[in-house]
Amino acid sequence: MGLGRRGGRRRRRHYLVAEDGENHIGLAMAADLTRGVAAGRPWLLLEHSTSAVNWQERNIAKRPGEMARNSLAHFARGADAIMFFQWRASRFGQEKFHSAMVPHGGTDTRVWREVVDLGTTLRALSEVRGSRVAADVAVVWDWESWWALELDWRPSADVRYVDQVKRWYEQLWRSHLTADFVPPEAELEQYRLVIVPSLYLTTEAAAKNLRGYVEAGGTLVVSFFSGIVDENDVIVPGALPGALRDLLGITIEEFLPLRAGEQVTVLDTADGLEAPWAGTIWTDDIRLRDAEAFASYADGPAAGKPAITRNRVGAGTAWYVSTALDGAALKALLARIGVVQPAIAGLPEKVEVVRRVGTEAEYVTVINHGDDGVTLPLAGVELVAGAQVSELVVPGGQVRVVRRQRRGGR
Amino acid sequence: MGLGRRGGRRRRRHYLVAEDGENHIGLAMAADLTRGVAAGRPWLLLEHSTSAVNWQERNIAKRPGEMARNSLAHFARGADAIMFFQWRASRFGQEKFHSAMVPHGGTDTRVWREVVDLGTTLRALSEVRGSRVAADVAVVWDWESWWALELDWRPSADVRYVDQVKRWYEQLWRSHLTADFVPPEAELEQYRLVIVPSLYLTTEAAAKNLRGYVEAGGTLVVSFFSGIVDENDVIVPGALPGALRDLLGITIEEFLPLRAGEQVTVLDTADGLEAPWAGTIWTDDIRLRDAEAFASYADGPAAGKPAITRNRVGAGTAWYVSTALDGAALKALLARIGVVQPAIAGLPEKVEVVRRVGTEAEYVTVINHGDDGVTLPLAGVELVAGAQVSELVVPGGQVRVVRRQRRGGR
Amino acid sequence: MGLGRRGGRRRRRHYLVAEDGENHIGLAMAADLTRGVAAGRPWLLLEHSTSAVNWQERNIAKRPGEMARNSLAHFARGADAIMFFQWRASRFGQEKFHSAMVPHGGTDTRVWREVVDLGTTLRALSEVRGSRVAADVAVVWDWESWWALELDWRPSADVRYVDQVKRWYEQLWRSHLTADFVPPEAELEQYRLVIVPSLYLTTEAAAKNLRGYVEAGGTLVVSFFSGIVDENDVIVPGALPGALRDLLGITIEEFLPLRAGEQVTVLDTADGLEAPWAGTIWTDDIRLRDAEAFASYADGPAAGKPAITRNRVGAGTAWYVSTALDGAALKALLARIGVVQPAIAGLPEKVEVVRRVGTEAEYVTVINHGDDGVTLPLAGVELVAGAQVSELVVPGGQVRVVRRQRRGGR
Repeated sequence: MGLGRRGGRRRRRHYLVAEDGENHIGLAMAADLTRGVAAGRPWLLLEHSTSAVNWQERNIAKRPGEMARNSLAHFARGADAIMFFQWRASRFGQEKFHSAMVPHGGTDTRVWREVVDLGTTLRALSEVRGSRVAADVAVVWDWESWWALELDWRPSADVRYVDQVKRWYEQLWRSHLTADFVPPEAELEQYRLVIVPSLYLTTEAAAKNLRGYVEAGGTLVVSFFSGIVDENDVIVPGALPGALRDLLGITIEEFLPLRAGEQVTVLDTADGLEAPWAGTIWTDDIRLRDAEAFASYADGPAAGKPAITRNRVGAGTAWYVSTALDGAALKALLARIGVVQPAIAGLPEKVEVVRRVGTEAEYVTVINHGDDGVTLPLAGVELVAGAQVSELVVPGGQVRVVRRQRRGGR
Repeated sequence: MGLGRRGGRRRRRHYLVAEDGENHIGLAMAADLTRGVAAGRPWLLLEHSTSAVNWQERNIAKRPGEMARNSLAHFARGADAIMFFQWRASRFGQEKFHSAMVPHGGTDTRVWREVVDLGTTLRALSEVRGSRVAADVAVVWDWESWWALELDWRPSADVRYVDQVKRWYEQLWRSHLTADFVPPEAELEQYRLVIVPSLYLTTEAAAKNLRGYVEAGGTLVVSFFSGIVDENDVIVPGALPGALRDLLGITIEEFLPLRAGEQVTVLDTADGLEAPWAGTIWTDDIRLRDAEAFASYADGPAAGKPAITRNRVGAGTAWYVSTALDGAALKALLARIGVVQPAIAGLPEKVEVVRRVGTEAEYVTVINHGDDGVTLPLAGVELVAGAQVSELVVPGGQVRVVRRQRRGGR
Repeated sequence: MGLGRRGGRRRRRHYLVAEDGENHIGLAMAADLTRGVAAGRPWLLLEHSTSAVNWQERNIAKRPGEMARNSLAHFARGADAIMFFQWRASRFGQEKFHSAMVPHGGTDTRVWREVVDLGTTLRALSEVRGSRVAADVAVVWDWESWWALELDWRPSADVRYVDQVKRWYEQLWRSHLTADFVPPEAELEQYRLVIVPSLYLTTEAAAKNLRGYVEAGGTLVVSFFSGIVDENDVIVPGALPGALRDLLGITIEEFLPLRAGEQVTVLDTADGLEAPWAGTIWTDDIRLRDAEAFASYADGPAAGKPAITRNRVGAGTAWYVSTALDGAALKALLARIGVVQPAIAGLPEKVEVVRRVGTEAEYVTVINHGDDGVTLPLAGVELVAGAQVSELVVPGGQVRVVRRQRRGGR
């Protein structure tokens, strides 16, 4: 079951947030979400840009190699076709400063040469078409919950759904873990870790599905303002968080949102955190029922109360994170939960690795967003250059794709 | 005569500015203003909240004890009934995240227990009903002047009426002085100190009333942009500030408002200030007529000219303050003017003391907003706990009410 | 040919940006632009204010002497009459806090006395009427290009026409150079230096005129986003900047606008800059054709590429500046280009000197915006005080006008 209607849409347009210095992470998230809408099947990138667009405040141009990295990141995450808006830059009208395959300067230009090179590369990768992305983690994404959460009159206007999802996604990306976006009622048994960011609206079916996943041995991580209302935006009866109260083994006496810019300190309870962690936006007044406190608040309105809890249910564990941890803390928490590891250890943060699995072979795309070259223990046929390799060298800014023996299902 | 129509309204709703870390001062001001509208008589608090509301940007929840402090601050300042919106938190609709006497979690909750405790306390205080608040100072409040002042095209958009009133009110609060809000034509003889913040619109009757108060021995403090127009928003003829020119003993050649963020230094002229004081928003080009300079500008557009003046008129004194002094300077200035003192010396700033006088007894409410306990020289029957005391101990965050012999009129 | 219709309008109203601490530079630019609209002929200042206006956020009053400096700066730059809004401050209505020749305080006021003094001064200067301002530099100003440039969907919303013109104008002012504003098709041969800020829309006639000027020996300085479209807002065919490509001897492969707040470093290429210069808002990906690089980017999206170029064409030189240099860098660049010098060397920055040339005499106005007096090597009859001088002393804050033998044409 996909994130959209049955079968989902299998095409999208994508344009970078030009001023975001790490907009390749947003691109990856958009591509993974598109694949989620397509229920995991390959999809088509109908439009993106060779360089700058014309409709943002500051239309930052792509730098050399960036268009290829963008294009092949979409490819790595399931796109079977990479198309551009537009063929030739128009001389007039509101899109005359939108980049094109053929710029105003014609074919004696960097952009045109990189477009031609990309065509060559895509031809060399044509056998990858139809293969499926292999993910490490599922992130629950729910459109109805998004719409309901962002209605007026919630406890804090600082809680926005996509922000909260992206916080988790970004740290998965930095941890070299590939995520599938799935609806809350999806079959989850194939995933060792499922993350549920701020699932404000939780249907009974969803709650039951998540519980079944944990009972069967899964690891579930739920963040704050989840399980609050049903599909009619009605508070689930009894102590909060009604729909997930038993699964998480806690009750929330009261939401304790934070002031603008306020930061709270999260400290070790039992396990010993390396250092204090920082949270913003939200805290809760939590009472433990069946759960134990993994970390507590050292200050703020919930000082002395649990901040992060975990609850053993059947063969699995359900975690609850009651504040918006900063990036470093979220990445550290993912490492502490520890049930998934990247396929290749010791990767620099800026090296993106994604695997597509075909019927007979699998294809590992490596995108080096850093300036320095990197060598990976990947043997096989490198398709971009067309060479057999016993280990893979990826220069700074470049992309490589290795075909190797299929090693396991999706 | 009250601040509203004859007899005034005697009821109000009050909700905190949730993110304001000292919102109990704004609460006190609102309660005192309500009593002013009621012409000094007791009034009813129709609505407030047990904890967070749902319609501010960040709906900060009240912390333990805060609801009782809020409720009893209203009581101390003249409320004879304390009511809440709402009985039970609603499960749906736009107010489902508004706090209630019965939260979503039901009666096994901190909020419910505190509501029950408050009921017990209010029953113990029932004899206080009908008594009147005893004030130390009057602050002139004028609705028409507010409306006129905030019309467009004034010298500086940074001058806003409520801001300017609150600046003075806040330092009265920190000085442990209780204020009545009164209209500018009110009988003032009962007050040793009357403060007139930015009374832009000043009727002839008001000017005459203020003059009579000073002549009879009163101390009047007027702040900038006062006495400018009559009740038709027409400039009073002659040199500024027309309506108050003779009373203040100065003329203002020109308003010299300050740039955004600009700060000027106010220095001692005759009396020796402890340290330079800071002003913002406004200065004037003042010429002394009958007044003397109490302090002058060391810099800014009025450098070398008077900043604060005083004028002996009859048996009293009329002060003029031509800039928006910062909080510390205003508090120091109040101490230098010095005609009123708090009933109990040496109180920590966060301890609020207000007296209500009944026909046979008087009631002193002490609200400890700080974390540390305090002991006061107040003997009598402490009504909250129901005990005879020879001195009063108020633990951090708690409220106590002492009944004692009536010591003087309102 | 003037900047407006044939003959142009010869009158304007001017009000300061009150909070701008150097608003006399904006005043000078407005006056020069008015003269440009009047095709160089004298013009009338229909309205300005004696002190504060009433419609800005903070209506900062003029300080003593400022009204005279303002008035005589208009005079120096071609105004033959100096009038005020308004005679007497009105007692009611939305303009009651707008300054006037007669303030609310009447005639025993600083403002009235300064108005009377100004009348005396203007009578003493009456022989200057009809004379013409002698300029050192032309700045191209084009209304249609302004309108077109600021349409939506340009590469960076940070590029605004008046801002860019003012950046150059301000450094001319600080360099003691007087500028004429001229349309791009104007006769330019009389100017040794012509500056063309961001002339986005460049007609064929304009391009031809600018080329002719350079071929005949002129020095032209063009800043970024110039020569892009024709009079129909259609991109000029071929590599950018189409209309000025050959004259500048470069092509621009791609605009590389900068992020909000991003700053790039411009370093010496051949000539040795004193220190790194800073640029914001814009850079280009420039390829040199006939031009040489005068300076290059040390960082940012165009790192290693030319930042400032110059191209010898016929007997002249065409410069191109591809970023918004900060003030210090622009002033230093003007000094490096070096084809014009102020008439009097070694002036303090805050001393403004402008020359008007009549049929028989010329008149040098000196406005001292600083606090300290200054002595200039100007001999003649000083008209304000009516004295023969062999050198000119101008006290801080004062204005002097010297009549001397006519030394050359306009």
